[in-house]
Amino acid sequence: MIKSINLKQRPIGTPTLADFEFKEQENNVTLSEGEILLHSTYISVDPYLRGRMSDSKSYIPPFEVGQPISSGVVAEVIETKNDNFKKGDFVAGMLPWKTQQASNGEGLQKVDKNKAPLSVYLGIVGMTGLTAFLGLHEIGKPKKGETLVVSGAAGAVGSVVGQIGKILGLNVIGIAGSDEKVNMLTSELGFDHGINYKTTKDMKSAIQKAAPNGVDIYFDNVGGPISDAVLFSINRFARMIICGAISVYNNTELPTGLSVQPFLVKNSALMQGFIVSNYADKFPEAMKHLVTWLGEGKLTYKETIVEGFENTPQAFLDMMAGKNKGKMIVKV
Amino acid sequence: MIKSINLKQRPIGTPTLADFEFKEQENNVTLSEGEILLHSTYISVDPYLRGRMSDSKSYIPPFEVGQPISSGVVAEVIETKNDNFKKGDFVAGMLPWKTQQASNGEGLQKVDKNKAPLSVYLGIVGMTGLTAFLGLHEIGKPKKGETLVVSGAAGAVGSVVGQIGKILGLNVIGIAGSDEKVNMLTSELGFDHGINYKTTKDMKSAIQKAAPNGVDIYFDNVGGPISDAVLFSINRFARMIICGAISVYNNTELPTGLSVQPFLVKNSALMQGFIVSNYADKFPEAMKHLVTWLGEGKLTYKETIVEGFENTPQAFLDMMAGKNKGKMIVKV
Repeated sequence: MIKSINLKQRPIGTPTLADFEFKEQENNVTLSEGEILLHSTYISVDPYLRGRMSDSKSYIPPFEVGQPISSGVVAEVIETKNDNFKKGDFVAGMLPWKTQQASNGEGLQKVDKNKAPLSVYLGIVGMTGLTAFLGLHEIGKPKKGETLVVSGAAGAVGSVVGQIGKILGLNVIGIAGSDEKVNMLTSELGFDHGINYKTTKDMKSAIQKAAPNGVDIYFDNVGGPISDAVLFSINRFARMIICGAISVYNNTELPTGLSVQPFLVKNSALMQGFIVSNYADKFPEAMKHLVTWLGEGKLTYKETIVEGFENTPQAFLDMMAGKNKGKMIVKV
Repeated sequence: MIKSINLKQRPIGTPTLADFEFKEQENNVTLSEGEILLHSTYISVDPYLRGRMSDSKSYIPPFEVGQPISSGVVAEVIETKNDNFKKGDFVAGMLPWKTQQASNGEGLQKVDKNKAPLSVYLGIVGMTGLTAFLGLHEIGKPKKGETLVVSGAAGAVGSVVGQIGKILGLNVIGIAGSDEKVNMLTSELGFDHGINYKTTKDMKSAIQKAAPNGVDIYFDNVGGPISDAVLFSINRFARMIICGAISVYNNTELPTGLSVQPFLVKNSALMQGFIVSNYADKFPEAMKHLVTWLGEGKLTYKETIVEGFENTPQAFLDMMAGKNKGKMIVKV
């Protein structure tokens, strides 16, 4: 049987398991000419998927109710009628949450399991790494010696952003949600400072203390009150990369907070929404850096791998609740 | 007697006349070598002065209590010991609010009263025009056919922004605070649409209706709820020039409103604080355009001129309350 996971209903507020449904169908796919049969190996669960579960205008269309959810997937070619793919090849791309499926190969990239563990193609040398690298470079425009603050710093993107910041000679401060995570940032990933926002009463002062020379770049994965607190420390010409707002994705009402405009005027500061897919022309160059740094041991990665296709929805919920360290991945 | 206007105390909330004080001193200035004696002709009152009256970190230092306020001034050279200036020359620059004063000429630009009325050097071919031109070009990066929304549209900067927008072939929507102002925008200044925010109950819908193709550029002079309402209409890759936040300058608490981050992420949109002085290298080029357009009759300007040096504080208060149309200037 081929299993798939559909969006059963659009979540209101925080998603629950009831928003997902499992379907099974006979395993009787016959390939047309040019098609390949894929068996899913790893599935990526990411914060942006929450946005696609809602029915609102965004940069990618919402998921359809009653249809499979899709995300980054690594899969093995188990049958082929396409000369570009051999049996036993592995590919990565955006694919529906199914244990098996046919594909014409469009939008899929072959990945080499001898060069790096397969899960990494969903993470540090996949969209996660590209998001970190390109967001930091294209909007952050980092200069050696500057101060970088990263929110969601123990997450998939944040943990890479901070490491790249250190490679580039920045002073790096990470904000995360547990002492264990903060400890990981400073002792394993080379961050200069870590702040546990859950136990820190006065975030504004904590950031000012960790960044005595002010904040030049803020890589924002979370939005909400943490981002408000950062505003008090921004320097003239600060750049704020708005990569995500996980803290408010589940809100049923529009989130409110400090008006950013007075801070932007005072500091000639910039705030820009970042979507990695807008920078596709820069992927090869960015990938080269990531692979090199990974090979040189300058970048390390954290993964939280959950076993079992049937645990994908729970893995997504756990990731939204911050239970992961680094990239959250399901092993099918 | 030489009169000057000092900051008596830092205003709390909305400034009042009690925050200013008049001083007189004997008119017995003796010029040193290299100095000129200036008699003030026109004084500019602008929203940004409110910021300098408070004691908070900003892009220019605050005014000192007990010292004269300064702003853009056009003055006549009535005595000279500096070869660069002749008696009868007119100059423009940042000067203290004094009827007469000595200067070494630094930072002053000679202006030609035969080329344009002198007051214009504080407005459309001065900082006001430069702010409009450079904010729109450097951050807005306008492309023909796009939609531009301007808040504070009947004010000094806003009224020029909209006209430049029309010269560049944009669809221009202006937001202002009275029917009379809105009428001026559409019937005299060539704006395509005007919205009176004081009589419009649902600003979000009004903007959506006036901008059926969405908003590509927002030139923001006001901040607050008007700017929140614009967010619902922004297009992918929208650019928002944060030039001022007059609606909240008098707030005694930090203003709050909609969180902009989710809108920025969804639309890959940009929001950037704009201070004209950061773009000094582009002044000559911008000035050339402004003077040409003015000469060709493509740009018109609105001024509200108040007579009498002693009315300068009241003119400032009136401008903050939106009682001006176009540039507010005091004739000494």
